[in-house]
Amino acid sequence: MGINIERIQKDIETLAQFTATPGAGVTRLPFTPEDRKAREYIKGQMLAVGLKVREDGVGTIIGRMEGAASDAPAILIGSHYDSVRNGGAFDGVAGLAAALEATRALREETAKLCCPVEVLAMNDEEGVRFGTGMMSSRAITGELPDEELDMTEDENHVTVRQAMQDFGIEPELQKALRNPKEIKAFLELHIEQGPLLEAEGTEIGIVESIVGLAVYKVTIKGRAGHAGTTPMHLRADALLAASEAIFAVNQAASGINRDMVATVGKLQVLPNAANVIPGTVEFTIDARSSNEADIEQIYDKAAAILKQLEAKHGVSTQISNTFWCRPVSLSKRITDAITNEASTLGYSYKSMNSGAGHDSMVMANHTDTGMIFVPSKNGISHTPEEWTDYQDLQKGAEVLLNTVIRLGMER
Amino acid sequence: MGINIERIQKDIETLAQFTATPGAGVTRLPFTPEDRKAREYIKGQMLAVGLKVREDGVGTIIGRMEGAASDAPAILIGSHYDSVRNGGAFDGVAGLAAALEATRALREETAKLCCPVEVLAMNDEEGVRFGTGMMSSRAITGELPDEELDMTEDENHVTVRQAMQDFGIEPELQKALRNPKEIKAFLELHIEQGPLLEAEGTEIGIVESIVGLAVYKVTIKGRAGHAGTTPMHLRADALLAASEAIFAVNQAASGINRDMVATVGKLQVLPNAANVIPGTVEFTIDARSSNEADIEQIYDKAAAILKQLEAKHGVSTQISNTFWCRPVSLSKRITDAITNEASTLGYSYKSMNSGAGHDSMVMANHTDTGMIFVPSKNGISHTPEEWTDYQDLQKGAEVLLNTVIRLGMER
Repeated sequence: MGINIERIQKDIETLAQFTATPGAGVTRLPFTPEDRKAREYIKGQMLAVGLKVREDGVGTIIGRMEGAASDAPAILIGSHYDSVRNGGAFDGVAGLAAALEATRALREETAKLCCPVEVLAMNDEEGVRFGTGMMSSRAITGELPDEELDMTEDENHVTVRQAMQDFGIEPELQKALRNPKEIKAFLELHIEQGPLLEAEGTEIGIVESIVGLAVYKVTIKGRAGHAGTTPMHLRADALLAASEAIFAVNQAASGINRDMVATVGKLQVLPNAANVIPGTVEFTIDARSSNEADIEQIYDKAAAILKQLEAKHGVSTQISNTFWCRPVSLSKRITDAITNEASTLGYSYKSMNSGAGHDSMVMANHTDTGMIFVPSKNGISHTPEEWTDYQDLQKGAEVLLNTVIRLGMER
Repeated sequence: MGINIERIQKDIETLAQFTATPGAGVTRLPFTPEDRKAREYIKGQMLAVGLKVREDGVGTIIGRMEGAASDAPAILIGSHYDSVRNGGAFDGVAGLAAALEATRALREETAKLCCPVEVLAMNDEEGVRFGTGMMSSRAITGELPDEELDMTEDENHVTVRQAMQDFGIEPELQKALRNPKEIKAFLELHIEQGPLLEAEGTEIGIVESIVGLAVYKVTIKGRAGHAGTTPMHLRADALLAASEAIFAVNQAASGINRDMVATVGKLQVLPNAANVIPGTVEFTIDARSSNEADIEQIYDKAAAILKQLEAKHGVSTQISNTFWCRPVSLSKRITDAITNEASTLGYSYKSMNSGAGHDSMVMANHTDTGMIFVPSKNGISHTPEEWTDYQDLQKGAEVLLNTVIRLGMER
């Protein structure tokens, strides 16, 4: 029978309706009324396939299909079903729907796998509500500290624990933690969220590594002053200095290699009035690479240019590291298996890095992990316009299914 | 007797107490409780000097001292008493207090002037509440259109007319308009609000012209995208393009001449998130010069660089002129008189341009107008730290007084 793309499409379109912002994209934050509707739908679909459904200690929904040997390590497949604010219908949900459909196809196949297969509907990957993210995978792997449930709040000062309890989940991290010996592999299909596959006309992306990420915060302090009464040569214009820094950071990132990216995405000017010379500018540098040394090089180059700007513009500068996450390599065994299946199906494929973080990044430190990327139209994501053609998603789901079968046949 | 600086200091310190933001500078917006307290104090001081006090049709307070010939054109002296938000104690008020003190000194002198002298306490010069400004001077000169009273609102959608009526003033523009034949001259003492006098150790600034001002609004549209998944060479980063534009505008202004200034003071990034490539950046260019052609040159240079950036970064750009005010030359007769008096008093002085707008800019189109600048500590203004040493202010007030006497002796 294989993959029925219409069932995937129905899952994606149905879940897209559970949004706090109808008409303005998908907004499905964890432990909200939209979350509840999505959970009911997901559990209903799992039960319809005949999966055994349970929730772990942080509310991750797990649908299990037994294999020939019920005590064999399980293949975990799935992705997250939460969204950003005003996001798209495919980020996360495409992978969950493909995983659900893979179990339907397996159920319809006569061959029984040796090992169990579990579909994971993961929550709070995006981290929008509490500023953290990757909750399900961190709970499964023991990387979610208990204190975080009490220390982390949403914008209304509701802690994670309180939000879960109000939602009807009694958080128990021990009940979420999995023994790595029970897990054979984790496979996640996801939209690329970038332009490369579409630009090259490639059907399948096979993720080799998930890039490391550093966020640096830069503050430049000059001297605010009247725009009309302060001659150019007596100014210490924080925005002029920032402009040179932004240009230099972009130059540096472009010069390192094609995998390196650095972005100044957030910038604030103070006091931000047309007739006042900017006194202070704060901005972020988001630097990512599969090579840690490249990320450090961006810091070094930024720090060096800031030093130069202090002398040149009479400003003071500060740079600090506010977030750091090392690059993660995915399992060669799994990427080889995905590559074989894509090749056998006759689909074009390429090895690539993921520039975005995913639950797979967390899972990869604990179990053999692989990711399958499908093309994103115009490379965009986290907007209502996010789109993946269903025929592209079908190909990705077929590769996922066949990889599960291949791994599941292995003793 | 001459100028008694202690009385000026008392006026300034008393008026500084009438603020909506105690402990955080002077916030005295027009037609507010703080305005009312200031008006009562100012009228009380005028009456104490023996001036005949009236209010014109927009609430400008006028205190008149008759001369030998009561039908001779009057010398108008004064400045505004409104403030910006969280401003200083000297902007405007220094000139009003110096004018009040000049009439006290004149009263104490035995010599009677030929002509009347009027102290003007002007309102809503800053334009903070309604976004316009120069209200008193525009009403006096007939440049305030009646429609503006109904079309212009504060942030709570209260029109100027409503705000005046609620305050107890029935706006009547005809009752504010002055016949130029009734006015001999307008003299305004003001803090420099810039660093030049202090930097050069000069005691008195004699304003030759008030610079023209253009505000240009620039919009750069690129393509928002995921900071991790979009390679550097496939980006259209609006902030990177803006950085180059900001640098180029500053370079251009510095290259024209020492009088030209251009400032990018206000900038907004959209969507302004650390992990999203900036899709749109909007910023202002505030360009000022005593030479209109210089201002136009900034526009031409900005437009040219924006064109280049379109090709280089794959962005689209727009630039439009949102404000335009021509340079104004002050009266040579008055600046010569001020120069003579400063010289006679033995004070160091220099001719200069005003980079800030003032009521004098409006008055100069209708009557002989002169401005006296006194030094601003560190060149700052519009902040609680705004400061002018009282001995500096005394010198400015003496020059003002002697210039009034000189002009008042002339038939």
